[in-house]
Amino acid sequence: MREDEILKNLYKFFKPNERIIVGPGDDCAVLSEMVNKNLIITTDAFIENIHFKGDLLSFYEIGYKSANAVLSDIAAMGGKPLAIVISLNVNQKAINRIEEIYKGISEVCDKFCVSIIGGNIEKYDRLELHITAIGEVKREGYILRSNAKPGDIIAITGDLGRARGYFIAYERNLISGVKWWVNDMREKFSKPNARIEEMNKILNNIKVNACIDISDGLGIDGYRMAISSEVQIIIYANKIPIRDSVKYLAKKLEIKEWFIAVESGEEYELLLSIPREEAEKIEKLNLPLTIIGEVIEDKPGIYIVDGDLKVDISKRGYDAFAI
Amino acid sequence: MREDEILKNLYKFFKPNERIIVGPGDDCAVLSEMVNKNLIITTDAFIENIHFKGDLLSFYEIGYKSANAVLSDIAAMGGKPLAIVISLNVNQKAINRIEEIYKGISEVCDKFCVSIIGGNIEKYDRLELHITAIGEVKREGYILRSNAKPGDIIAITGDLGRARGYFIAYERNLISGVKWWVNDMREKFSKPNARIEEMNKILNNIKVNACIDISDGLGIDGYRMAISSEVQIIIYANKIPIRDSVKYLAKKLEIKEWFIAVESGEEYELLLSIPREEAEKIEKLNLPLTIIGEVIEDKPGIYIVDGDLKVDISKRGYDAFAI
Repeated sequence: MREDEILKNLYKFFKPNERIIVGPGDDCAVLSEMVNKNLIITTDAFIENIHFKGDLLSFYEIGYKSANAVLSDIAAMGGKPLAIVISLNVNQKAINRIEEIYKGISEVCDKFCVSIIGGNIEKYDRLELHITAIGEVKREGYILRSNAKPGDIIAITGDLGRARGYFIAYERNLISGVKWWVNDMREKFSKPNARIEEMNKILNNIKVNACIDISDGLGIDGYRMAISSEVQIIIYANKIPIRDSVKYLAKKLEIKEWFIAVESGEEYELLLSIPREEAEKIEKLNLPLTIIGEVIEDKPGIYIVDGDLKVDISKRGYDAFAI
Repeated sequence: MREDEILKNLYKFFKPNERIIVGPGDDCAVLSEMVNKNLIITTDAFIENIHFKGDLLSFYEIGYKSANAVLSDIAAMGGKPLAIVISLNVNQKAINRIEEIYKGISEVCDKFCVSIIGGNIEKYDRLELHITAIGEVKREGYILRSNAKPGDIIAITGDLGRARGYFIAYERNLISGVKWWVNDMREKFSKPNARIEEMNKILNNIKVNACIDISDGLGIDGYRMAISSEVQIIIYANKIPIRDSVKYLAKKLEIKEWFIAVESGEEYELLLSIPREEAEKIEKLNLPLTIIGEVIEDKPGIYIVDGDLKVDISKRGYDAFAI
């Protein structure tokens, strides 16, 4: 089979919309101009044995998870995603399963009205997806990670810990058999959801000073917000939304629940820094959004407060280059 | 070292310009709106031992070549490049040479006023660059590959054959020592140049019906133009611009010069289909642009005419998935 035939076979996953003038198949895709909007762009990589293991995720789930991961960056910026391009490396095992990967990606794209406008495929010894997403924000509507202010409250969407919890359970050989707590963790691990719609609702109702998505862990990502904003972030351990499944695992392992929650990457929840006066509006939003901490004027960093303990969590999470 | 520190160290290669509102360092980069323009997007991969060998190119050259390769797609569309994002995988050998790679990319970006607005880095066992480029075209100004018309003439920028010629010389152990013909071929192989400026001048002066860039070879890329346009393309062997270095190699190997020229990928020359009535304007452009063939109404495909021979060249070139 020729590369062109493989790519052409994937065009069925391209859904045209009014913004796409030229879809996949030419040297570039063409998108129509935007009025009163700014363009936002992000790129991310998903590599076998680094970001996922083939025996833990189906090809469909690899596509589904990867697409949500990259769109999560668009959500964190306060944007609306428009289109993605995919640079795919496939190994012998994946070469006949490309459509399953694309089905996973495509399901996510359809949900958010995103078009797959281009791609590149190479034969390689490992499965890799490098996805670039293009979105738009209202002219002054983008939310930076670097604008958290002393006095803000810190909130998080959804819950934390299940993505990491599932991987821990896998590493400790605890996942076999039907177990409610394993299934609950696997749901988040295999099918996370970018908080595009939630962020849209938040921004339509309350002022947000800063935002970042949790892809490497509350510790590392919160630290990124803290140092770029030159503030100190305090998280209250007992406020973090942690589900029973993660609590169950923590008990089993005899560790604190928040150990799992703060180092859990691939959650794709949004960490928000919000002016304190907006706090009471949060409950009225009817969203899974929880106040978990606050921003203070002190040495930049991120700490968790657990009773009398105050612990630096700036290195808790996933760092590709950590020694 | 932390991933964030590695990335931050690369921000020096980011050159701000009026269109870039937020550069690298946040979840997304932000570009300002465009008036009367359309946006064009393309993605491409450059993988060690597939697209390049570490012993044939320096890290600087790998960056330089990769950047030109992706910007060549912008040129082929008739566009002006604005920005790129880079998803980089580095192995142990490359981890301390990332700056050299970025220096090569950056030199190309500076030349075309392109900003490096974002990136991602992973530690991996092989060096890989996945680059996505964003550009703009005038509202109706984009040039498709699929619009070649019977009666058009076919033209090519620059010369063909040196990129492949150098690789053949390498495979046959001919490259050692100082040889004028090896050096001439290596120049194109290691530092190809995207024809952004040339295409701009062409479009300001003559009508172009279709365009594609030569990344996989005149055979394969010309075939792409032919089948998407539903026309037959005829190339005249004696018209192809081939430099003395390639002629010398062909003679040495006792093969026809055009064998090398038509299968030479990574040339990043532009193949143009131009209305015949524009032909006489081409010379006045004072550009390296040569008429090498024509478009006829016949079974879609691409053929080369060499004296009495008419040879199908649709499979000549590089196909990642060819068996």
